[in-house]
Amino acid sequence: MWKPDRNSKKALYEQIADHLEQRISYGEFPPGSLLPSERKLAEQLGVNRSTVVLAFAELRSLGIIESRTGSGTRVSTSKWEATPKHTPNWSRFAEGGSFLPNPPFMRRIREALIQQPDLIDFASGELAADLAPTIELAQLMKEHKYTSYLGYDNPQGSTLLRQELVDYLQRYRGIRTTESSILITSGSQQSLYLITQCLLSPGDAVAVEDPSYCYSLPMFQSAGLRLFRLPVDEHGIQPDDVRSLYKKHRIKMVFLNPNFHNPTGTVLCEERRQQLRDVTSELGLPIVEDDPFSLTAYDGLPPKPLKALDDIGSILYIGSFSKIAASGLRIGWMVAPNSIVSRLADARQQMDFGLSIIPQQVAGQFIGSHYFEPHLDRLRMELRFKRDLLIEALEKELPGQIHYKVPDGGLHLWCKLFKKMNDSKLLEESIKRGVVFVPGSVYGSDSDFVRFTFARPKTEDIGRGISLFSEAYRELNG
Amino acid sequence: MWKPDRNSKKALYEQIADHLEQRISYGEFPPGSLLPSERKLAEQLGVNRSTVVLAFAELRSLGIIESRTGSGTRVSTSKWEATPKHTPNWSRFAEGGSFLPNPPFMRRIREALIQQPDLIDFASGELAADLAPTIELAQLMKEHKYTSYLGYDNPQGSTLLRQELVDYLQRYRGIRTTESSILITSGSQQSLYLITQCLLSPGDAVAVEDPSYCYSLPMFQSAGLRLFRLPVDEHGIQPDDVRSLYKKHRIKMVFLNPNFHNPTGTVLCEERRQQLRDVTSELGLPIVEDDPFSLTAYDGLPPKPLKALDDIGSILYIGSFSKIAASGLRIGWMVAPNSIVSRLADARQQMDFGLSIIPQQVAGQFIGSHYFEPHLDRLRMELRFKRDLLIEALEKELPGQIHYKVPDGGLHLWCKLFKKMNDSKLLEESIKRGVVFVPGSVYGSDSDFVRFTFARPKTEDIGRGISLFSEAYRELNG
Repeated sequence: MWKPDRNSKKALYEQIADHLEQRISYGEFPPGSLLPSERKLAEQLGVNRSTVVLAFAELRSLGIIESRTGSGTRVSTSKWEATPKHTPNWSRFAEGGSFLPNPPFMRRIREALIQQPDLIDFASGELAADLAPTIELAQLMKEHKYTSYLGYDNPQGSTLLRQELVDYLQRYRGIRTTESSILITSGSQQSLYLITQCLLSPGDAVAVEDPSYCYSLPMFQSAGLRLFRLPVDEHGIQPDDVRSLYKKHRIKMVFLNPNFHNPTGTVLCEERRQQLRDVTSELGLPIVEDDPFSLTAYDGLPPKPLKALDDIGSILYIGSFSKIAASGLRIGWMVAPNSIVSRLADARQQMDFGLSIIPQQVAGQFIGSHYFEPHLDRLRMELRFKRDLLIEALEKELPGQIHYKVPDGGLHLWCKLFKKMNDSKLLEESIKRGVVFVPGSVYGSDSDFVRFTFARPKTEDIGRGISLFSEAYRELNG
Repeated sequence: MWKPDRNSKKALYEQIADHLEQRISYGEFPPGSLLPSERKLAEQLGVNRSTVVLAFAELRSLGIIESRTGSGTRVSTSKWEATPKHTPNWSRFAEGGSFLPNPPFMRRIREALIQQPDLIDFASGELAADLAPTIELAQLMKEHKYTSYLGYDNPQGSTLLRQELVDYLQRYRGIRTTESSILITSGSQQSLYLITQCLLSPGDAVAVEDPSYCYSLPMFQSAGLRLFRLPVDEHGIQPDDVRSLYKKHRIKMVFLNPNFHNPTGTVLCEERRQQLRDVTSELGLPIVEDDPFSLTAYDGLPPKPLKALDDIGSILYIGSFSKIAASGLRIGWMVAPNSIVSRLADARQQMDFGLSIIPQQVAGQFIGSHYFEPHLDRLRMELRFKRDLLIEALEKELPGQIHYKVPDGGLHLWCKLFKKMNDSKLLEESIKRGVVFVPGSVYGSDSDFVRFTFARPKTEDIGRGISLFSEAYRELNG
């Protein structure tokens, strides 16, 4: 991102005015369009707000922009009046379409992370850079040649990766399948997107856990689905709730994350798994099983997926590389009946024409290599260590103020604050102090819950991060 | 894909029966679901149909499958009757959703290419393997370390690649922009998908060229858009047609491929560009400019994009790596006003959470390297050579039977056959003989048009491919 040059002889505000004028002339801000606010620009460019105020004044005096109280600063349209040119009404286009924007909290967190890269990040649901198998992947990329074929790929994804996954799924997840029933996707996200877009119709009712990361995904609402809740207690959901939702609302699908559930960390207990199997096979109800965390089980004994016992093909199983290796590879997979895999592969061709070949090959080589198991061992150990650091910090900084269940796997700690808070204020106070987390309401909970991802921040930042968070917490609790 | 072992002592039909029984027990073909037809399975497994008939008979005698005349072979449901288990009605799910499947011809071609990998391929709109900069990319991957950060990326795509594209766009396309107005996408396909899904609403009218590759993309219909035609003559579309469509149907956007148009190869002439600018700026009408082919200009003088003269930001410009380097990298880009880029980046996060970092870095390094220009030079030379080979073969095999305009860039030759044909039969006869092309009707034309992609087949196969095509052609013309 462009920043003004502090060593230049030209004043900062002049540099900013010139830069904006240039971008306006490029059409990046068309006539009539809204410019970022003075506050936001100042944040982005790393200058005082008064500098941006001067730059805007300069552009205003040249007739390039116009400000009106309460409606922000816009690119002037009068400039074009001599030759009447009409620019498309982009704001109407940007607000149109059936696609809902991400929830405000998620956009706010993303924006804060882009603008302040040194924020201590308990929000992004991913591994820290040093937990990814960076060296191993680099080594594999050196050993293998990845670019022998660079044309369009099989619509279901790389054959090599699907073959490796057949072994992987059997060995690590107890799932038996063949490569023709696997679809490679861009993380779990794309699997969920394909299911909600292509297999369900607007108005369809589906059941999701409560709380659930699904609530943070506007794709469900964008697809016009009606969401019904399956409350999660310390042993997971109640299968009987599935039956009553079916009776009341004719739910068409059940979305579950039974192992180290996001955000609560819960594992669905054995007894309820049996009941769930009975209920869903009685009703002919499909389950979407999202299983990204199982291999993080700190004791090295991952709970089995529901799919391992699915002999009638009633489960769409979703796995991913993101939470156990590297989210930036964007590799996920779905195991599903043949007819569903074909349908979704065809639809995906229309959306993006498939994934890049290179990361698929790297991922396939990695899970088939002797690097994979030692990586998992190290990952589990480090995650447990970071979980313990987080808990230690919370006990030190907020003793008796917070409640949580210690998870045995996954990347997150789900905390209940003993006092109800305005979670928007808590988030802003935290960001101001240099730390960020996800408010529980994003997952459909009350505003006294918080999700901390201990996997993401650097080990040495966890203590300081919680100390900053507790400052924000105390600020709001007088 | 699994194939029976011809050296095994076990009979082929038994191997196939065992394999199918296994996959049925894995849930890949749930109870009640349709198995592939005998013909299709025989093709896939490379055996005689009679072998599959025997395998099916075996499974039928075990009560695992059931056949009913006219409705194919299904996995038996009675097997499960002792304990009543209900499998989800997957076929209803697969037929549901608002997403239309790809056109039958496109699915047929893809299927044929997967089943017969030695087909001479004039259908896939991409470069041959040996035209991709395979060695150069491998070299770059060796020189650079690509895996230093493997977390989630900026929602607009890799900063490195966007910075390289700012220079690339200015240098090669005369487009001035900054990295904040660039969105990296999975090829042009994803740019188009994002626009049709997120900026337009069901019922909106849009204008597309006639013929156009857009007709081969069900995404327009899936988004509920009404498509209106802008006929293309040898100088491109008529800007006045845009005005009349606007008056009659209030079109909201115009989708154009003005340089080496797919499928016709036409370049929009200078005079009409001026008129188009006047019309669209008068109406405030946005243009989506798809520009994947310009740098293939055989004379090394690519026509300028419309976007180069767009100072009011009324053009959404789409570029791609697919047709000038390697489709398997899945790298494309959009240049658009800031508000649109933010909106689409946010929506894309919901669909797939962004692209893999590695191919973005490779692409960025490549366009910024000293390998890029020599690659383009070689590509242009080879494409012209292959175009000439194709024309030579057509003149030899089908003299006086076919009409075309020689293109100055792009990957395709658009041919009118002098006789009207049943294009489905022509395609099947061709596939039977070992060659495949795209029938013109896929692009919205009459059935006497054919698109040959000369870039895709191996140089040494072009002559033989056309000879096989002409056999099919003559077969149908008695």
